[in-house]
Amino acid sequence: MICLLFCSIGLKGQEVSDYVNPFIGTSNFGATYPGPVAPRGMVSIAPFNVAGKQNVLEKDSRWLSNPYVHENTFLTGFSQVNLSGVGCPDLGVILVMPTTGMVETDHLSYGSTYSNEVAKAGYYSNTLDKYNIKTEFTTSKRVGVNRFTFPAGESNILLNLGLGLTNEEGAMVKVVSSSEIEGMRTVGAFCYNNPESAYPVYFVAKFSKPADSFGVWKKPRKYEGEEAQWMTYNGKTRMMDNATRMIVGDSIGTYFKYTFSKQETVEVKIGVSYVSIENARKNLEEETSNKSLETVYEETLGEWNQILSKVKVEGGSKEDKINFYTALYHTLIHPNTLNDFNGDYPEINTGKIGNTTGTRYTVFSLWDTYRNLHQFMSLVYPRQQSNMVKSMLAMYDENGWLPKWELNSTETFTMVGDPASIVIADTYLKGIQDFDVQKSYLAMLKSANQIEDNPLRPGLKNYLGKGYLTTEDVGSVSTTQEYNAADYSIAVLAKALGKTKDYKTYRKRSLSYKKLFDKEYNLLRPRNSDGTFYEPFNPLAGANFEKNVGYIEGNAWQYAFMVPHDIKGLKKLMGGDKNFTIQLQKVFDDNQFDMANEPDIAYPYWFNYVAGEEWRTQKTVEELVTKYFQNKPDGLPGNDDTGTMSAWLVYSMMGIYPASIGDNKYQITSPVFDQVEIGLDSKYYSGKKFTIITKNNSKENNYIQSIKLNGESLKRYWITHDEIVKGGVLELELSPNPKK
Amino acid sequence: MICLLFCSIGLKGQEVSDYVNPFIGTSNFGATYPGPVAPRGMVSIAPFNVAGKQNVLEKDSRWLSNPYVHENTFLTGFSQVNLSGVGCPDLGVILVMPTTGMVETDHLSYGSTYSNEVAKAGYYSNTLDKYNIKTEFTTSKRVGVNRFTFPAGESNILLNLGLGLTNEEGAMVKVVSSSEIEGMRTVGAFCYNNPESAYPVYFVAKFSKPADSFGVWKKPRKYEGEEAQWMTYNGKTRMMDNATRMIVGDSIGTYFKYTFSKQETVEVKIGVSYVSIENARKNLEEETSNKSLETVYEETLGEWNQILSKVKVEGGSKEDKINFYTALYHTLIHPNTLNDFNGDYPEINTGKIGNTTGTRYTVFSLWDTYRNLHQFMSLVYPRQQSNMVKSMLAMYDENGWLPKWELNSTETFTMVGDPASIVIADTYLKGIQDFDVQKSYLAMLKSANQIEDNPLRPGLKNYLGKGYLTTEDVGSVSTTQEYNAADYSIAVLAKALGKTKDYKTYRKRSLSYKKLFDKEYNLLRPRNSDGTFYEPFNPLAGANFEKNVGYIEGNAWQYAFMVPHDIKGLKKLMGGDKNFTIQLQKVFDDNQFDMANEPDIAYPYWFNYVAGEEWRTQKTVEELVTKYFQNKPDGLPGNDDTGTMSAWLVYSMMGIYPASIGDNKYQITSPVFDQVEIGLDSKYYSGKKFTIITKNNSKENNYIQSIKLNGESLKRYWITHDEIVKGGVLELELSPNPKK
Repeated sequence: MICLLFCSIGLKGQEVSDYVNPFIGTSNFGATYPGPVAPRGMVSIAPFNVAGKQNVLEKDSRWLSNPYVHENTFLTGFSQVNLSGVGCPDLGVILVMPTTGMVETDHLSYGSTYSNEVAKAGYYSNTLDKYNIKTEFTTSKRVGVNRFTFPAGESNILLNLGLGLTNEEGAMVKVVSSSEIEGMRTVGAFCYNNPESAYPVYFVAKFSKPADSFGVWKKPRKYEGEEAQWMTYNGKTRMMDNATRMIVGDSIGTYFKYTFSKQETVEVKIGVSYVSIENARKNLEEETSNKSLETVYEETLGEWNQILSKVKVEGGSKEDKINFYTALYHTLIHPNTLNDFNGDYPEINTGKIGNTTGTRYTVFSLWDTYRNLHQFMSLVYPRQQSNMVKSMLAMYDENGWLPKWELNSTETFTMVGDPASIVIADTYLKGIQDFDVQKSYLAMLKSANQIEDNPLRPGLKNYLGKGYLTTEDVGSVSTTQEYNAADYSIAVLAKALGKTKDYKTYRKRSLSYKKLFDKEYNLLRPRNSDGTFYEPFNPLAGANFEKNVGYIEGNAWQYAFMVPHDIKGLKKLMGGDKNFTIQLQKVFDDNQFDMANEPDIAYPYWFNYVAGEEWRTQKTVEELVTKYFQNKPDGLPGNDDTGTMSAWLVYSMMGIYPASIGDNKYQITSPVFDQVEIGLDSKYYSGKKFTIITKNNSKENNYIQSIKLNGESLKRYWITHDEIVKGGVLELELSPNPKK
Repeated sequence: MICLLFCSIGLKGQEVSDYVNPFIGTSNFGATYPGPVAPRGMVSIAPFNVAGKQNVLEKDSRWLSNPYVHENTFLTGFSQVNLSGVGCPDLGVILVMPTTGMVETDHLSYGSTYSNEVAKAGYYSNTLDKYNIKTEFTTSKRVGVNRFTFPAGESNILLNLGLGLTNEEGAMVKVVSSSEIEGMRTVGAFCYNNPESAYPVYFVAKFSKPADSFGVWKKPRKYEGEEAQWMTYNGKTRMMDNATRMIVGDSIGTYFKYTFSKQETVEVKIGVSYVSIENARKNLEEETSNKSLETVYEETLGEWNQILSKVKVEGGSKEDKINFYTALYHTLIHPNTLNDFNGDYPEINTGKIGNTTGTRYTVFSLWDTYRNLHQFMSLVYPRQQSNMVKSMLAMYDENGWLPKWELNSTETFTMVGDPASIVIADTYLKGIQDFDVQKSYLAMLKSANQIEDNPLRPGLKNYLGKGYLTTEDVGSVSTTQEYNAADYSIAVLAKALGKTKDYKTYRKRSLSYKKLFDKEYNLLRPRNSDGTFYEPFNPLAGANFEKNVGYIEGNAWQYAFMVPHDIKGLKKLMGGDKNFTIQLQKVFDDNQFDMANEPDIAYPYWFNYVAGEEWRTQKTVEELVTKYFQNKPDGLPGNDDTGTMSAWLVYSMMGIYPASIGDNKYQITSPVFDQVEIGLDSKYYSGKKFTIITKNNSKENNYIQSIKLNGESLKRYWITHDEIVKGGVLELELSPNPKK
């Protein structure tokens, strides 16, 4: 198949994009999809195989947040907008499906198994077994290009606007002509929250060949009562042949029918917009009009190669490179573009249409991404990160609040904490400062201090009064820690802005986690509103997303070290370096470390904070990278969390990790590769290269013996952002022996 | 209240429109509504009181075809598009409802009783008891003007797009601003037929005062299954405050909220279109922009006065005048305008948008209206009738077939027969000939002869082979009679066009009803496909819309004389004048005459076909007029059938009736009025007056003694269309004694 693909699209030579394997993360709840997406594209195409009980994981029979599962076998379409690596279902709609023979509109009837799957950056193909149809897909930023090669005979292209990943329903469709459809599909209610903010995704579909005939189907609900007895059609699917009027309904779709005397190919381009049908049409015209699938694919592939090669690696195995570049690819999907080609985008909360000359980004899973993904964007893609911060500030302008978990200009309020402050402060400290930092600061203070009607910081009254949230609040320990980290970010930004008094205030606030420290356990422990510790206390409770008083998605061990701004202080609390090391090592030895969730993902790097124990970081990181990240569908430890897991891997394989907050430091560990070269941006940084070179790197030689920065010996296991972005060389000498 | 109304809108003097009582027909299943409509308006407003079990007649608990029932008491809104006098439910949607206090979106909760009802041509008002809100309404042709006078306090204007007269659902809405809404509502499936052709009615609503706040509600269906368990909001109404995005759903609506410190008035203008939202907005702008309710009302009232005064009556009681002008008013509602202000309209079947420089009419209930309504239009409003025929021909162009029961460019295929041919031939013979008669003729021949896939004439194979439909066909006797009448119309048109051979062919075909004549009963009787008469045969079966083999909505008696083109032949079959008269009189004496349905409505006039028995016509018509048509809500014998019953009354009260087909004759009976003056059109006719004068007219003096036409004695009880349209005077001398 690889040959088939390459031959047909005429590519030559090895490119970095060849190391992308989009199947990674499509099993084990990684929640990625194998279909094409352009870097930060609004549109993506997923082979949709989660409907129908014949599938191992069925979307309606359990909590399932992804449109594709690798073990599943029954495909019912190709969804044109999707989320990658999220923990809640949303999008996964506008399903295109080619069939042959009579038109069948029930996906359980028209679905098919498939084979010959090929997935590459920007390209996906398979064969639908039931119909012997070859499918191929690529995307530009805002347009999905679907190509179907039909055998001779009766052929159909269905656009199913009823089926989708979630229970959210409601669509409008209007067949404009025998080669064009326009419409909208309702999406929203991410995490089954906030159904009031359900919103439309608009589309225009253009077919390369006019249909011989077409129609719209509508499956209305079944009505009850007396009148229903006269409705012989009650609840039955209506086939509205030749319908060109506007049709709305919960379960509607279009069928375009062809009769082919020989094998024929039809391309369906679907332009998408969150603003209007007109904009969807403009997006389609501007990005793909008159372009073949090959041309669009070549352009998107070119974009991927260009963006992926900002980091070049040498050495390591081919598998290592695949794991690395696929992870890098996964960090470049979300946040994604929300604005149309003409700059229009739906504002958050105002109901207005905004316009940007830059990029309005969306899908900010900030509870995840504040930990490493944005730091990575700041380092390698600072222009993107600048626009991400500007997007966050525009949300503040529109909504009165910075985002928490923003999705297509709706605030889903998923997870806890106040992560936007951490991201913005970090970005500013890293030297990306072409945004309104004064406004940012005001926005941060607002969420830090407004006690009433504060959507970002529930429990703030207790936090400000007692220094911690109590068991009456949600996730009191976790949330206190999150607010501490956010307050520390405010403190360091205050300092940078010369606001010394504020610095002191927020610095102090950021250390209030200490009040939750229970010496008996050497852990943070929930406290009741009367100040007593919560009973019963089981530090092991809370595995596997069990509800656990005091903690969000984790247990006391998984949160104990989540003090990324004050590891020094934590060490002291825990009784100094030795006890700290013992306690931290216990997390790994006792299997309390959860690679699949965010609270503890910086833990492996905290050994670097104890002189002589850095080898544990090197050992642990290497073990985790090897164990959890592999070139196979279940090659992610779990949910990719919009690239956060992937960002962890990318950094860890490079040998640096931004474990701490507010100090611009990267912890150093032993890289996987012999050489890692980061191309530094010329607008924000030196425009030079920063290269990480290892000596004596091998599978066995995983321990750092010595470090040199630009030829000079470095007596520490960290490096600053500033040192990196000047350009230069970090040289690590490795050996098989831990340096204790 | 009358004074209040007149004072507030500044009208003076007695106008013909003052005799319109829109409450007539709002009970006894007359199916009219009391709210305003402009002559042949696309828009009408009905106080919607058929939802909620507290109503005597509830829309979902029985077959109910009207949005308003006079006995009902619980009002849940004001629907902006409605059908008048039809037997199947449709439209009755886009419900506007003012309320006070908290927003309540369930109509069963927000509904109210009402009082102070005022209904006039073009105006309706009431007071909502629950809220003490005064409501007032008028309409232009395509715009509903709703005015609400609120007491001080919290007030709301709801636009409910979920509730409607039928089970048909599906709507789209988008709040454009705090004073404008646009959207669509799905309607269709008239008579629970043809749900595949359900189609949108678009609207734009403009508010005279911007709302203080607004939102959209959506009540989604309740989802089943595992996933539904996470949806805490499953099936619950969502209140989407400030929503300005496109929202679709089966049960959605908007709420516009106001806080008034004193009594305040808000006007909501709702422009409607069957083409697009843009056209709905244009219709609104062109017809009512900047006009107050008073201005729109005065314009519409002026139209009504102008059109109603084409027929001027003198004498009779005030009640007689009210019955007459209300009936005239009811003949001027359907067919109604389908095209937008700019001429656009949805074509039938093609899915395209057509454009007309005239008027595209819709709502052709031709099984009813071919019998008298179109003849009346030809006589008094020939310009309208010309456009009606042109509309029918445009449908043929678009759809390949003339209409049968057309509704907003969908063919509902309700009832039987091929009535379009009758209407078109009659119009042509009456001298309205500015349409493509050759095309008409071809269209008529097509439905008369195409055996396969003929949507107008099912059973045609038997009809052509045997001369009649058999009991294997639907309504075999009735349908044979209908086809006979249509074929006779083709014959006379053929003759007029010089096609002698065709004339003979179709003349012969038109007499095949004779094969169904059973001498044993002196009635028409169903025959089986082997030629035997159908057993058992009960001439009385078929009352009250019971199913009755051979007959559509009637029994053998009610169809026996439905041979409007060959009463002479029928007389002969029945054994001559005397037997004919006995048999016909039996219909009335044995209570077999049904005033409420069409097949027998010409019966009273057939006595005129027997010399010396004309007094029976005079007697019977007078009795029927008095018994069935009264100035009260149940003052129609039943369903108005889009004005057919009213046309019967109008003609009968004038003293002439077009009982026969193809001979341009009006039967003469004794008029109710002392003088009836018809203003004749100057384009098609003489432009003069035709006056019917009675001498010695009184309640007792109901029998015609002598007839003079233009001063010369007339020795017959009929007059031709040509004699009338030249202008002149028909003078009838009446006495209390039948002239035998």
